[in-house]
Amino acid sequence: MIHLPFLLTEDGVCRLQEECLFILDRRRYPFERVEVPCRSAEEVATAFKEMVTQGGGPLEAALKTMIMEARNHERLSLFEQIQHLRRVARLLSDARPTNTTMARALDEVIAEVEKRNDESPSKVVEETVRMILDRFAGIYHQIGKLGSTLINDGDRILTTCFAEHTFLLSLLYAKQAGKHVRVLVSETRPYLQGSRLAAPSLEEAGIPLKIITDGMGPTMIAAGEVQVYMTAADLVCRDGTVVNKIGTLANALACSRYGIPYYALAISPDPNKKTRADVTIEMRDPKEVTQCMGMRTTFDTIEGVYPAFDIVDPELVTRIITQKGILKPSEVEEHGR
Amino acid sequence: MIHLPFLLTEDGVCRLQEECLFILDRRRYPFERVEVPCRSAEEVATAFKEMVTQGGGPLEAALKTMIMEARNHERLSLFEQIQHLRRVARLLSDARPTNTTMARALDEVIAEVEKRNDESPSKVVEETVRMILDRFAGIYHQIGKLGSTLINDGDRILTTCFAEHTFLLSLLYAKQAGKHVRVLVSETRPYLQGSRLAAPSLEEAGIPLKIITDGMGPTMIAAGEVQVYMTAADLVCRDGTVVNKIGTLANALACSRYGIPYYALAISPDPNKKTRADVTIEMRDPKEVTQCMGMRTTFDTIEGVYPAFDIVDPELVTRIITQKGILKPSEVEEHGR
Repeated sequence: MIHLPFLLTEDGVCRLQEECLFILDRRRYPFERVEVPCRSAEEVATAFKEMVTQGGGPLEAALKTMIMEARNHERLSLFEQIQHLRRVARLLSDARPTNTTMARALDEVIAEVEKRNDESPSKVVEETVRMILDRFAGIYHQIGKLGSTLINDGDRILTTCFAEHTFLLSLLYAKQAGKHVRVLVSETRPYLQGSRLAAPSLEEAGIPLKIITDGMGPTMIAAGEVQVYMTAADLVCRDGTVVNKIGTLANALACSRYGIPYYALAISPDPNKKTRADVTIEMRDPKEVTQCMGMRTTFDTIEGVYPAFDIVDPELVTRIITQKGILKPSEVEEHGR
Repeated sequence: MIHLPFLLTEDGVCRLQEECLFILDRRRYPFERVEVPCRSAEEVATAFKEMVTQGGGPLEAALKTMIMEARNHERLSLFEQIQHLRRVARLLSDARPTNTTMARALDEVIAEVEKRNDESPSKVVEETVRMILDRFAGIYHQIGKLGSTLINDGDRILTTCFAEHTFLLSLLYAKQAGKHVRVLVSETRPYLQGSRLAAPSLEEAGIPLKIITDGMGPTMIAAGEVQVYMTAADLVCRDGTVVNKIGTLANALACSRYGIPYYALAISPDPNKKTRADVTIEMRDPKEVTQCMGMRTTFDTIEGVYPAFDIVDPELVTRIITQKGILKPSEVEEHGR
């Protein structure tokens, strides 16, 4: 039996209670388990922008926000309710532009509400969200099973950031199949999602791990200390371009040079993004780079730069693991949808 | 007129006062200017191991420790004084094995004491140390002038860690020649020498800079945001292998792929190291990787790995700037000594 660590359980992301969405504050995990209460889509969008939750978190939080907003606006006319939900969906999508999986899930909710326009929008939203969340849970397990087949007994796997369900499940299914696996986690500055989210979750799942700083991945690859590099993909283009947390490119370049496979775990490639030219990279607050967990790391007068994501060329990606199977980057266009 | 920032002045490294060496604590700079008092070579060796000073700091601190120890043992017999100084030199060298420039300077002091064995060792040590420090100051300027010729007007230069005199002087001489230069500083986890030492020193020297995290260098290189990558070299082997702070390899790999030059600034290649096989990489306390400025970044139960240096293959190095000139890695064996 596969058990997910706390952060990957539904309540470990967010809880909808009465008229409020409580989002687990990943900025303070694992030192504190604190939730940020959001009473409107505006507050949720702000929470996304402030990184209260990240990775797969916004998908679940955005869907549950749709339920909250639908419930809180039942007194409006049917037309006004649909209008309002459209506005909410756009607001949430705009708050994390790289997360097009979330955007497409929100579009699906809106499409369903528009289609079933003889029913109560709040009922339709609730049913659709539940269906989407269950479908994603199924996809996570499916991708995890595929991912586990790419891992060999005794492998040490390098990862960046917090690749969540698909990564943890790949390891847990590998473990279930009797393979011994170990992980090297890149701490992932500036937010330290590696140290704070991935590492405690791996420990909880009983998978041995060690942490390295973000400059060490290529060193470990060059030294033969790593057999597989595996990350999530925030976005995959139709040409097989992978977009993931800043720091991914450095390791992908080292993998390419030293003959180590780089596997990206992706729910589904984005049909609206053909190549890297279609990708907008979020430039986040440069102040994050000149602090660590709220403490300044240099003088106040000195500035940072913070592009939040890397764009990795298809030729640097060995395989992309999707719900449609394990694909070469060149196969994404044809088989990835 | 070229003015060095505080950290690169002699008193900015350490001060010998009466019977005590006061070493500036680089772990707390720039937030505090605190000195660690060391009354013996043992205390200095501990200070090296605990990273009170690093980079070029140990060279100056070790030489001044020789003066302190020679003065404090003048009452011993001549034979015992020389024996003692030999022991001190070995103790200091062993405290930072990658810094073979320091080891060779200490050997030079010992050789001089042995040669001039009709003179007071403390006098010989004092004269030799002064001569060596003045010689290094000259070499720094010489290398800085050479380095400046590799920088073009408008270049943005990426650097790792705190490359000290040779790097700052390369920039200052470039600036003196009317070239506009900007710098991207990698923060250099876990000790943040980039954010805490390099960035404030560059600011003090009037050179515009921004800080990035250690995972971002290859991203900036790939994006065309960097024209030159320039670092110090803790050690250069006779075959042109460069040893420098962990994180250097990641950027050197990106430079190689995207056609950006990587220049390493080195006082002089080490005649005792032929290839990477002769290099011992210091494995430092893994606890440093799971904390930042004293704060834990993950659970106490989770471990880190901390190889302190990268070994960069000669083929990844464009030029090595030495006191003998600007050399290709393949020229080091013949011309680098």
